[in-house]
Amino acid sequence: MSDLITIPARRGKAYRVAKGETIKVINTHGDQVIDTWAFNADDLHEFMSMEHSRAHILKIVPAVGDTMRTNKRRPILTFVEDTSGGVHDTIIAACDKHRYSFLGHEGYHDNCEDNLHAAMHDIGLEAPETPSPLNLFMNIPVQPDRSLSFEAPVSTPGCYVRLKAEMDLIIAFSACPQDILPINGVGHMPTEAHFTIES
Amino acid sequence: MSDLITIPARRGKAYRVAKGETIKVINTHGDQVIDTWAFNADDLHEFMSMEHSRAHILKIVPAVGDTMRTNKRRPILTFVEDTSGGVHDTIIAACDKHRYSFLGHEGYHDNCEDNLHAAMHDIGLEAPETPSPLNLFMNIPVQPDRSLSFEAPVSTPGCYVRLKAEMDLIIAFSACPQDILPINGVGHMPTEAHFTIES
Repeated sequence: MSDLITIPARRGKAYRVAKGETIKVINTHGDQVIDTWAFNADDLHEFMSMEHSRAHILKIVPAVGDTMRTNKRRPILTFVEDTSGGVHDTIIAACDKHRYSFLGHEGYHDNCEDNLHAAMHDIGLEAPETPSPLNLFMNIPVQPDRSLSFEAPVSTPGCYVRLKAEMDLIIAFSACPQDILPINGVGHMPTEAHFTIES
Repeated sequence: MSDLITIPARRGKAYRVAKGETIKVINTHGDQVIDTWAFNADDLHEFMSMEHSRAHILKIVPAVGDTMRTNKRRPILTFVEDTSGGVHDTIIAACDKHRYSFLGHEGYHDNCEDNLHAAMHDIGLEAPETPSPLNLFMNIPVQPDRSLSFEAPVSTPGCYVRLKAEMDLIIAFSACPQDILPINGVGHMPTEAHFTIES
């Protein structure tokens, strides 16, 4: 098992993972949303796709046993354990500079889109686009009338998700810097989180 | 109003639309799913995004009065009328060659992804990627347990959706060639559909 790797508060982190290894994503302080991407290590234009995964798992939120797929419909990550309560999101875009302008913020605001690209750059890579992310621990309930809302996480300190790599891949995380909506907990500021790689 | 323009069965069609014009998409035979994309005419890298739109309309299915947004969160298409029953989909990827292999089809099968790119090519353009489509008339119910299924449309012959262009854009349609799952009606084969442009 690797050392504990930090996803700094409001920042991103990318890491190379070999096929068969498992990534344990820890919600250290309990109510931090972690935007998550995975790219084929041999072809960054192939990446985990929410819209393709949903067509195969036949759910809008993956659970233990479900395998996420790429935009070429190949398996890329499998949920093997989840102690968080199972509330995650696949339907909302990564926050970006436009999002914070729309919410009334003036000037630059940290955001998950820029965090993804900075994290990839930090390991010498360039993400070809910003795929729709797997938003771990993010609570977007969908009502029977098909409306949705942004709610605080149900996850608790130290809870985690374990994801098995189904191919050699680059995993990228962003500790979501959203501090206007209560998506990282009511009254809570964005915090750091951690992950380990288990072989 | 333009003449009636055909989206041939199992094929795509792209068309230039000016800001302020309205696109009337007609489900001529009643149960044909129409995958729909919209690209900023001045920058094809900006396009209608399901994951960004959902964050703003706060629904998984848009209704009359809702405005779809681009991956830069700018308004691009507004639903101004809908006589179809209001059942559409924003959460499932366009079908592609991989989808039909997965479903057991041998050899080439027409698919919405290739139809998008062929339709853009026909008007001298190249789509930079395959965005997650707005699947008009597609019936993907989401249950309270967050599961989903592929069902036949509820739309009827001649029903239509009217979409107002909020910028100069390229609209692209694919008359979905899915003939393995009942997404285009139980026992029904893919059919043509039509659209008009109203100034």
